[in-house]
Amino acid sequence: MFKSLLLKFVKSLRNDSHYCCSQVPNVLHVLQSQNVGEKIEVKGWVKSLRKQKENVFVDISDGSTGKKLQVLVPQKLFPAGITAGASITAEGILSLSPRGQIELSAENIKIVGKCVLDSYPFAPRKQYQPEYIRQYLHLRPRTNTFSSILRVRSSAVLAIHKYLNSEGYTNVHTPVLTSNDCEGAGEVFKAIPDDINLLKTMVKDKVPLEEAFFDTKTFLSVSGQLHLEAAAHALSKVYTFGPTFRAENSRTRFHLSEFYMLEAEIAFLDNIQDLIMIIEKLIKHVTKSLLDASDNDLKFCHGENKLDLTWINKNFPILTYDEAVAIIKKRSKQFKAEFDDKVGISKEHEIFLVNYCGGIPTFIINWPKSIKPFYMRECENDSTRVASLDLLAPGVGEIVGGSLRENDYNKLKEKLPNSNAQLNWYLDLRKYGGVPTGGFGLGFERYLLLLLGINNIKDVIPFPRWPHNCSL
Amino acid sequence: MFKSLLLKFVKSLRNDSHYCCSQVPNVLHVLQSQNVGEKIEVKGWVKSLRKQKENVFVDISDGSTGKKLQVLVPQKLFPAGITAGASITAEGILSLSPRGQIELSAENIKIVGKCVLDSYPFAPRKQYQPEYIRQYLHLRPRTNTFSSILRVRSSAVLAIHKYLNSEGYTNVHTPVLTSNDCEGAGEVFKAIPDDINLLKTMVKDKVPLEEAFFDTKTFLSVSGQLHLEAAAHALSKVYTFGPTFRAENSRTRFHLSEFYMLEAEIAFLDNIQDLIMIIEKLIKHVTKSLLDASDNDLKFCHGENKLDLTWINKNFPILTYDEAVAIIKKRSKQFKAEFDDKVGISKEHEIFLVNYCGGIPTFIINWPKSIKPFYMRECENDSTRVASLDLLAPGVGEIVGGSLRENDYNKLKEKLPNSNAQLNWYLDLRKYGGVPTGGFGLGFERYLLLLLGINNIKDVIPFPRWPHNCSL
Repeated sequence: MFKSLLLKFVKSLRNDSHYCCSQVPNVLHVLQSQNVGEKIEVKGWVKSLRKQKENVFVDISDGSTGKKLQVLVPQKLFPAGITAGASITAEGILSLSPRGQIELSAENIKIVGKCVLDSYPFAPRKQYQPEYIRQYLHLRPRTNTFSSILRVRSSAVLAIHKYLNSEGYTNVHTPVLTSNDCEGAGEVFKAIPDDINLLKTMVKDKVPLEEAFFDTKTFLSVSGQLHLEAAAHALSKVYTFGPTFRAENSRTRFHLSEFYMLEAEIAFLDNIQDLIMIIEKLIKHVTKSLLDASDNDLKFCHGENKLDLTWINKNFPILTYDEAVAIIKKRSKQFKAEFDDKVGISKEHEIFLVNYCGGIPTFIINWPKSIKPFYMRECENDSTRVASLDLLAPGVGEIVGGSLRENDYNKLKEKLPNSNAQLNWYLDLRKYGGVPTGGFGLGFERYLLLLLGINNIKDVIPFPRWPHNCSL
Repeated sequence: MFKSLLLKFVKSLRNDSHYCCSQVPNVLHVLQSQNVGEKIEVKGWVKSLRKQKENVFVDISDGSTGKKLQVLVPQKLFPAGITAGASITAEGILSLSPRGQIELSAENIKIVGKCVLDSYPFAPRKQYQPEYIRQYLHLRPRTNTFSSILRVRSSAVLAIHKYLNSEGYTNVHTPVLTSNDCEGAGEVFKAIPDDINLLKTMVKDKVPLEEAFFDTKTFLSVSGQLHLEAAAHALSKVYTFGPTFRAENSRTRFHLSEFYMLEAEIAFLDNIQDLIMIIEKLIKHVTKSLLDASDNDLKFCHGENKLDLTWINKNFPILTYDEAVAIIKKRSKQFKAEFDDKVGISKEHEIFLVNYCGGIPTFIINWPKSIKPFYMRECENDSTRVASLDLLAPGVGEIVGGSLRENDYNKLKEKLPNSNAQLNWYLDLRKYGGVPTGGFGLGFERYLLLLLGINNIKDVIPFPRWPHNCSL
């Protein structure tokens, strides 16, 4: 008895549903369709409105495209209370404006939600500085520029996944919570349950209370590289693309406390030129596909006609670290600080070097071993240098770091930062069918700065976190 | 002078490189190509080997597919030291085996890395229990089942991104670090810089030292929903797909401390049936595309011929909470514990309900307000119920939770869990062009359990974290 009742109920629910989301076209579809004469309903937000004698012209957006749909509303149908920022539904017939643009001649228009203009921080058609807009992170997606950025960012994510998949990479989610501190740089956040009573119920003998949840100190990952290497020793080509963290008090326009990194690791890779080609091909391919997919939004971010990504058709120059330093030292007078071998190449130097190489992204290879992490492999003909690379981008500086990894068990064992057992598993990879591997990490937000011509990294991530700032 | 030197250097580097990674075909390509007579080089790991009088048969894998390439090596060419687990390169001619399989007749075979068999935990062709394999997370990708799982997981990630993109969703990365505690359940990790000296240099007046980095208490996100709602109020259809965290002492086979969640939020959505259709369509579409893309690996995980995903062609049943409870109460004797309204539907009940509905994923809708979070919208005709849903999957239980959100400013203000200003931004969304929204969260690992027929959630994520376990 129960079952037949159930099935009847299920059936009636399904027949009643009208599936609004698939029926209502979005603004992008409407503008692309050009179906003059069609009767449609659209839903969106009022970006601006102009009242004329008989009609009101309402520009609406639903975020599906940066372009607005103009809705022509006869004065007598125009409800009181519709202002910029309000959400509406409009029903009517698609027609062509005198200028040949598709527009909606509304027969019915309704307010969904009013906008309290007194306290709304963005006035229609007004330009604001990014620093001002950043004070309202929860409303920022409503601005034209930031909604363009969000769409491009989303397209870039998809383009990266699709490209790496087509190249035979497996996406391996490396963990955020880790008991390793990858590069041993110490600039890490630790994670602790907020509930001290929970910790008390879990604590074991000889374990500090703070570490009772996992029985070990636990950090937020600064890199998934070591974990990726484990996967590369079985799947050959792997990548991870997720959030990474730095507890650094860096307040430049290139630093975030939480940022996205694309990291890839490739087995049987044993020379730096191959790694260079892999990175160059990735960046060019993804950028080209975005020029197709996100053309309007890219142009909007750069300012019409200013989009200059000509580097995608050029070979990326390659300098050795020593060559780069020689070039810097020859021009030492133009820099704020003198070149210091212990500090290495600064942001100022990076941007200079790219300009020197014609404004094309430039690889710097073969870095001094002394300033690079323990896992990098020495150059074959110079044990003071490691087979590593940075890729510097115009106006941004470093966007990629990569290297070959030390794959000799004994050499790696000597180099391990601490003698405890914490990284024995990493050493193990070289003990059981070890292979040469190499890989890289691309700072996703820095790549977006390059792609979008945006000045500050806080403006290419939906919810930026930096020192003294973690709102929402 | 410097510039010409540079360009010469760049050119020579490029000419010398031989791009190994694009030249060496992977095992998948070799098996698909069927290019008998072609001379190739492959690189991979020895999965097993059989010595016969004149030849050694070596099965190798490079992780590009679950299938192995058989390499036929004349005894006289076979180097000492090649064992299961070792990494090798093999050059030779593709030919057909007597059984018509493509195989490689090796002319040259080299060891890349030996495998120290004494301590290697996996013997060739031997089956191990998942609990045993889980002790060696860094070597686990080398097992047949787990490498299949990793490939399916990767394909599922791509399928989800592609599908949502094609449906007009924008991927919005919600933050891991947040000053909000979403559902207010309290089962959160907090994040604190590990370096107390850094905190001392950053601390401001009236801010506790522990909170000095961000000037606020900072948690690891348990859900991106509230942030997604902010984006949905401009972009209409948005999703996030990343790690989420629970500091819960749950040690079941369905719980992890760090897991992946796909969350989507849709603007102008105002009835639960539409949300049901969106979720059902997503799951069916992604699963169907994986049946094409990952057929071999899926069959391998399920065991040949046992793959039963017939539910993808059926309508998902829908029960109200009250109907579900009535069904459970009628069968109360078969459950371990009596049904308790305050506890709600248990895992045991969930799995029973799906079986009751024919083993098809089943929606339970209209839950009691008292056991659901503050942001859910009341049902129109019953203020004790909220317009929410759980989707229960066969053998797994809940894999999706979703609801319409309270979009009335005043009602939401009354319901906010604490009177402080922490969530004023969330309230703001209803003040400036507010719209009805609805959304859901899909537990990605639980979906993989359903898809793969795997028993324990720790075996469908590369690096599982659960109470007392955070190795690597």
